[in-house]
Amino acid sequence: MDAAAKSGLPFDDIRNLVKQMPGPDEAARAAALERQGQLTKPPGSLGRLEDVAVWLAGWQGEAVPAISRPLCAVFAANHGVVAQGISAFPAEVTAQMVANFSAGGAAVNQLCTAFDVGLKVFELALEMPTEDITKGPALSEAECAATMAYGMEAIAGGCDLLCIGEMGIGNTTIAAAIAYGLYGGKAEDWVGPGTGLDAAGVKHKAEVIEAAVALNEGQLGDPLEVLRRLGGREVAAMAGAILAARMSRIPVLIDGFVATSAAAVLHAMDEAALDHCWAAHRSAEPAHVHMLEKIGKAPLLDLGMRLGEGSGAALAVAVIKGALATHSGMATFAEAGVSDKD
Amino acid sequence: MDAAAKSGLPFDDIRNLVKQMPGPDEAARAAALERQGQLTKPPGSLGRLEDVAVWLAGWQGEAVPAISRPLCAVFAANHGVVAQGISAFPAEVTAQMVANFSAGGAAVNQLCTAFDVGLKVFELALEMPTEDITKGPALSEAECAATMAYGMEAIAGGCDLLCIGEMGIGNTTIAAAIAYGLYGGKAEDWVGPGTGLDAAGVKHKAEVIEAAVALNEGQLGDPLEVLRRLGGREVAAMAGAILAARMSRIPVLIDGFVATSAAAVLHAMDEAALDHCWAAHRSAEPAHVHMLEKIGKAPLLDLGMRLGEGSGAALAVAVIKGALATHSGMATFAEAGVSDKD
Repeated sequence: MDAAAKSGLPFDDIRNLVKQMPGPDEAARAAALERQGQLTKPPGSLGRLEDVAVWLAGWQGEAVPAISRPLCAVFAANHGVVAQGISAFPAEVTAQMVANFSAGGAAVNQLCTAFDVGLKVFELALEMPTEDITKGPALSEAECAATMAYGMEAIAGGCDLLCIGEMGIGNTTIAAAIAYGLYGGKAEDWVGPGTGLDAAGVKHKAEVIEAAVALNEGQLGDPLEVLRRLGGREVAAMAGAILAARMSRIPVLIDGFVATSAAAVLHAMDEAALDHCWAAHRSAEPAHVHMLEKIGKAPLLDLGMRLGEGSGAALAVAVIKGALATHSGMATFAEAGVSDKD
Repeated sequence: MDAAAKSGLPFDDIRNLVKQMPGPDEAARAAALERQGQLTKPPGSLGRLEDVAVWLAGWQGEAVPAISRPLCAVFAANHGVVAQGISAFPAEVTAQMVANFSAGGAAVNQLCTAFDVGLKVFELALEMPTEDITKGPALSEAECAATMAYGMEAIAGGCDLLCIGEMGIGNTTIAAAIAYGLYGGKAEDWVGPGTGLDAAGVKHKAEVIEAAVALNEGQLGDPLEVLRRLGGREVAAMAGAILAARMSRIPVLIDGFVATSAAAVLHAMDEAALDHCWAAHRSAEPAHVHMLEKIGKAPLLDLGMRLGEGSGAALAVAVIKGALATHSGMATFAEAGVSDKD
C-alpha cells in the first residue's frame, strides 16, 4: 500500500507545500553579481564569499543583503534503535545535553554567543523514543507529518538566517538508514563511528541499517515514507523547518551528517528544494561527503568536526557575516579611485 | 661568495634570533589537552577547533587562552619585475589600494571590522620599487635586513594574535620566484594567474622566474639570500614580523600565497620556525597548496579566495574565536551532569 498514491492524508499537505516553493529573486541576484564586479578586488578573488553574498541577495530579495537575526534551531529526540547497541553513549545523554543547552554549557551555546546567533532548542518527546527501526516504522504518517509541522515553528519568532542542528543519541544510525533508504548502495557506505564506535561497532551499525531497510522492502519509493519508517522526530522536525524557511525565503545553513539526512528527504522530493540552503561544514563522519554529493552541496567549512548540535552551522555564520561585510562595505573601483584591470 | 659564511653582516642578527626562538609552554598545552577531554562532547568531535585551542594554550602559556587584541598587519611594496609585464593590474594600484585601506574601503577593512581585528598598514617605499629580479638582486643585504627589522615593528603596539597580509602588484611573481629558489622543481609548478593572467601570461610568468633564478645560480643556498635576491620589501617585512611574533610567543595567522612565501624563508632556516603559525586559508592560486605542503601546514579555511591583503587571515580569526569560545566556555561532563562514554 503506497501512501503517496492516496489523497487527503497528512503527507499531502507537505507535498503541496513542496509544489508551492518560491524561488530566489533573480533581479536581486543579478544586481548583487553586478556589484561584486565593481568592488575593489580582482574579479572572483573573494571566491565563495562572493557566491554566498549573491545567494543571500537572491533569497533576501536585496542587492545588498544583511543578516540581523540569525537563529540556530536545535531539535532533540530519542530513538528506539538505541536498543540495538549502536551508540557509544547511553540514551539518557540526549536529555542531559538538552539540560546542558538550557544551562549554556554546550559547544553550540558558545558558538552562538561568539557570533551573535540566537539559539532555540526544541525538545521532541524525549521520554517517548521512536519505534526501533529494525522492528517497525519509526513513526506513523500522522506522527511524522505533525512533527514536521512542529519543526516549522522554528521560524515563527522571526529570523533572517536559520541554522539547523540536532541532538539525539543514536541518530547517526537513523541518518545512515535514511541515506541507505534513499540512495541504496551498500549499507557500510553510509555508516561511521558516530560519537565513537570502534570498527566492530561500525560493522554492527551497518547490519542494523541493513535489517531496517530490509524490513521496509518495497515501501521506500516515497521519500516521506523513508523519513517516517527509518527516521526520527528530530529529523522530521528539521525537514519541516527547512521547508518552512523556504516558504518564507529564509536562507538556511545545514549543520552536519544528521541535519543533512533531513535535507536529503526534501531534495529527494524535489531537486530544487534545497536551493535556499548551504551546507555549513563537512563532517568527519565519513558518509557525510557522499550525502553532500547526492544533494549537490559543497560545504563552507571543513574542520574535522563531528559534534552536531548545530555547531558547524553556528560557526559558518561567521563566513556569512564575512561575505556580507565585504559585499556591503567595500568601495567600488570608481569610489576608491583604483585603476581597474588592464 | 657565500654571505652565510661571513660574520658581522646584518643577516647575522636575523640568524641569531632564529637560533634563540622560544618554544611553546608544554605544561599549558598539556593542561589544555586535558581540559578538552573533560568537555561535554565526544572526544575529538570539535576537530581542528580543539587543535587550535591547544596550540594557542601553548603559545600563550595559559591552559585556557584568550585573545583580546588580534591585529592584522598588511605590508605594501612595489616590484621592479612589473616591468616584465607579469601582472594584470598596473603598478600604481599598490598605492591606490593603500589609500583604499586608509579610507576603509578594502575587503580586509570589512573583515577586520566584522571580527574585531585591529588593522595596521605598513607602506614600504612604494615610490622605490625593488630591482627587477631578472636584472639583479631585489635588495642589498643591508636593505633586506633593515626591512625585516622594520617588519618586526608590527607587534610593537601590542597584540595577542598577529595576522600577516600584503599588497603589492607583481608580488605573486615574487612569491613564485622565492618558492622556486627555495624548493626547485619546475618554474611552472610555482606560477599561477595572480590577479587574473591568462594562460599565455602565466607561461610568461614562469619564464620570468626561470630567468630570475638562473641569474642567481649558485647564490641561493642560503634562504636569506633567496629572500633578498628574489623577494621584495613586503616579503622581507612579513618574515621579520613572523619572527618578531615568535620571539614574543605571539601566535600568527599566515594569510595566502605571498605571505606564505615569507614564512617559507624562515621555515627553510629552521623547520621549527613556524610552530607558532597557522595557515589561515588555502589560496585559489594553484601553487599555494604545494608551498603549504613544503612548510607542513594545513590551512583552516578553503573558500577559493585569492585576494591577499590579509583577508583570509582576518576571516580565520573567526575560527580562532570559535575555538577559544568552546574551549573556555563549555561545561565539563562533571559540571553538567552528563554521562560520559560507556
